[in-house]
Amino acid sequence: MSTPPARVPQQERSRATRARLLEATVDCLVRYGWSGTTTTVVATHAGVSRGAQLHHYPTKAALVTAAVAHLAERRAEELRVEAEALPVGPQRLDRVVDLLGVAFTGPLFVAALELWVAARTDPELRDALVPLEARVGREMHRLTVALLDVDERRPGVREAVQATLDLLRGLGVANLLNDDSVRRTALLRTWKHQLATLLAPGAAPAPPHDADPT
Amino acid sequence: MSTPPARVPQQERSRATRARLLEATVDCLVRYGWSGTTTTVVATHAGVSRGAQLHHYPTKAALVTAAVAHLAERRAEELRVEAEALPVGPQRLDRVVDLLGVAFTGPLFVAALELWVAARTDPELRDALVPLEARVGREMHRLTVALLDVDERRPGVREAVQATLDLLRGLGVANLLNDDSVRRTALLRTWKHQLATLLAPGAAPAPPHDADPT
Repeated sequence: MSTPPARVPQQERSRATRARLLEATVDCLVRYGWSGTTTTVVATHAGVSRGAQLHHYPTKAALVTAAVAHLAERRAEELRVEAEALPVGPQRLDRVVDLLGVAFTGPLFVAALELWVAARTDPELRDALVPLEARVGREMHRLTVALLDVDERRPGVREAVQATLDLLRGLGVANLLNDDSVRRTALLRTWKHQLATLLAPGAAPAPPHDADPT
Repeated sequence: MSTPPARVPQQERSRATRARLLEATVDCLVRYGWSGTTTTVVATHAGVSRGAQLHHYPTKAALVTAAVAHLAERRAEELRVEAEALPVGPQRLDRVVDLLGVAFTGPLFVAALELWVAARTDPELRDALVPLEARVGREMHRLTVALLDVDERRPGVREAVQATLDLLRGLGVANLLNDDSVRRTALLRTWKHQLATLLAPGAAPAPPHDADPT
């Protein structure tokens, strides 16, 4: 009769073990890169036995994919919480771009980039990552639309949000080897103005069927 | 008396050997990624003896850095030649953005990204790459200004060129695991309109000292 109460702590322990492994994986990817992140290194870093690690995540591909999915969900949640404290009105857009700029230069971005690049030449990892990349990309887009509090059905809004995320991804890469924050801040200041113009309710979108002269 | 004529072919052979090694290095980075690109693999791929490879490029860092520098110069030269065939007038901007879009999804971009990511956690490679990254970045900016045939002293032009290159870098990363060309083409079509507006001689630049409310 004592099985149910005993099972809950066991589930909780498992969940805590998994969370420790996933956080340690992202830490290791940021510190040691893809090739330095072995499952053994992660288990040690997490203070989890090798057996427990193998039980929860039998392969490196399973471990790293779960880690990036886990951190992406946690970051999205954090962004939503931070967004609740944002002002409404014109300043909101500036703050949202700043929050996203921080996200695209943080540990999750670096860890994910390590995986995207490694997956290019690693078929097992690629198979695991391609659906995750698509899902994270859609979520990021949806979250940005929600944070900006804009109506995506209006012409031009979807493209403006996409361009913002692609620009931020490019800025994230430019920050890999150097602190690029001064240039990034100046560039994003200009971008905020453009984005405000593009998202303004009366903004004229670019012609949808631009004649290609070639 | 026959030494000078004999020396020239030797120099030419050396130059040809180096060029083969550098092209093979970029090929290997694209095919096998950073960790799969050993100096032995490159020498075999280039059809060059291990001794000759070690003579010209004693370390992996020296080899890969020289390879990316070499290819960056060759690509810049190719872009300049392609640019000579470009129309003048409004269509020119569209064609330049298309050419850059191809460059940022091609082998040089992929090889360079492999190095930038690996250099994050490899101090020897990082020391070799940081000056190269700065030089390639400046060259790319200068080349883009020249291709677009715009005057960078006009307010807003520098920022617009930078944003274009950062956006293209982000689009290059988005293309790593999937063919993202449909989305990229649509997004760049919109971007061409914005860029044309930003670069137009009468364009009002964003306020230089945007008040930050925080």
